[in-house]
Amino acid sequence: MRYAVLGTGVVGRALGGKLVELGHEVTLGSRTKDNPSALQWAREAGAGAQSGTFEDAASSAEVVVVAVGGRVALSALEAAGAGNLDGKVVVDVSNPLGFEDGQVRLDPVGSDSMGEQIQRAYPHARVVKTLNTVNCDVMVAPSLVPGEHQIFVCGEDAGAKEQVTGMLGEFGWPAHRVLDLGGIASSRSVEMFLPLWVDLMRTLGKTHFNLQFHTGD
Amino acid sequence: MRYAVLGTGVVGRALGGKLVELGHEVTLGSRTKDNPSALQWAREAGAGAQSGTFEDAASSAEVVVVAVGGRVALSALEAAGAGNLDGKVVVDVSNPLGFEDGQVRLDPVGSDSMGEQIQRAYPHARVVKTLNTVNCDVMVAPSLVPGEHQIFVCGEDAGAKEQVTGMLGEFGWPAHRVLDLGGIASSRSVEMFLPLWVDLMRTLGKTHFNLQFHTGD
Repeated sequence: MRYAVLGTGVVGRALGGKLVELGHEVTLGSRTKDNPSALQWAREAGAGAQSGTFEDAASSAEVVVVAVGGRVALSALEAAGAGNLDGKVVVDVSNPLGFEDGQVRLDPVGSDSMGEQIQRAYPHARVVKTLNTVNCDVMVAPSLVPGEHQIFVCGEDAGAKEQVTGMLGEFGWPAHRVLDLGGIASSRSVEMFLPLWVDLMRTLGKTHFNLQFHTGD
Repeated sequence: MRYAVLGTGVVGRALGGKLVELGHEVTLGSRTKDNPSALQWAREAGAGAQSGTFEDAASSAEVVVVAVGGRVALSALEAAGAGNLDGKVVVDVSNPLGFEDGQVRLDPVGSDSMGEQIQRAYPHARVVKTLNTVNCDVMVAPSLVPGEHQIFVCGEDAGAKEQVTGMLGEFGWPAHRVLDLGGIASSRSVEMFLPLWVDLMRTLGKTHFNLQFHTGD
């Protein structure tokens, strides 16, 4: 499969690296062609790894992964070009996080979400929100955390969610640990989990953790 | 211990009933003296159960439990009377939830929370936020859900959190499953978990569930 991974930070490099390792062709996209982090990644990640602009990455891809910070996700997709997203699966792992006064702030929050904003801005893209609830190491190596912990998908397109569930399976998330929360509006819920994630990171003193839901009768 | 439980809905009755069963004296408080639901509860809950106004309940109590809906929590506490809260442990289990267009909405959300609003309004109360992340049956009978699932406490007063952790222990939550998230500002995080709780209720088709965090290295 040909993937575009938009974003050259730790999240983009972790996802891009794992996808290359799995045998996919990956273009790590950034705002400029000569992003040093992207160029270095492309040299070191192995066969199948390339770098380029957001547009280069998206135009050649079958699946586009949004791995920039949530607050710049829309501008990255605008640079990628609407025509390069039409009909494609767009995997949104972003969180619209900022820090103010030592506190995490989400924007949007409550009555809207990044997942919905992306789907509204690109109605012909098949947006799936996933993986934003775990650290990027855990995204691509869930076995770093022992136990039957879970990951969420949400989106409007059942076929796209199935395809993303397959990608998650390649990463090491068995299908029975992928919880389908429903439509893209559930992006609100999984994005609003982030402040709790940050508090837990402080409480537990680590970033490699994840949740499991237990059910009774 | 003498408890005031403010609120006569399913949450208040569940908490009040369990506290009575544990041998505590409980006054279930409501806006009026003749609330039928409170009167019936007091008749049926057993020795130690009384009903009264919010003020009646709070004035005689050592611990005040806020079990009304989050959106009316401040007005219930105002009716209880600031002087009846001074120096007392105030256990806030409320969620400021409403439904709009079939979606859960929180208000406040993001940059404030009910837990903080209560602590700010009553600076001499020792507010502890807890239990708002589970269904009321699970609050008082965590064994309804198998597994090592967890519950949160947050608040400014370490002694108050310790006392509430003791109450949780009486309910069936062992201390190692009580996660202290820190100060009362973490009320934001646990309140923002609610939309995910509602999505999960729809996905899982049940209300008796809870989360466990697994940690790696």
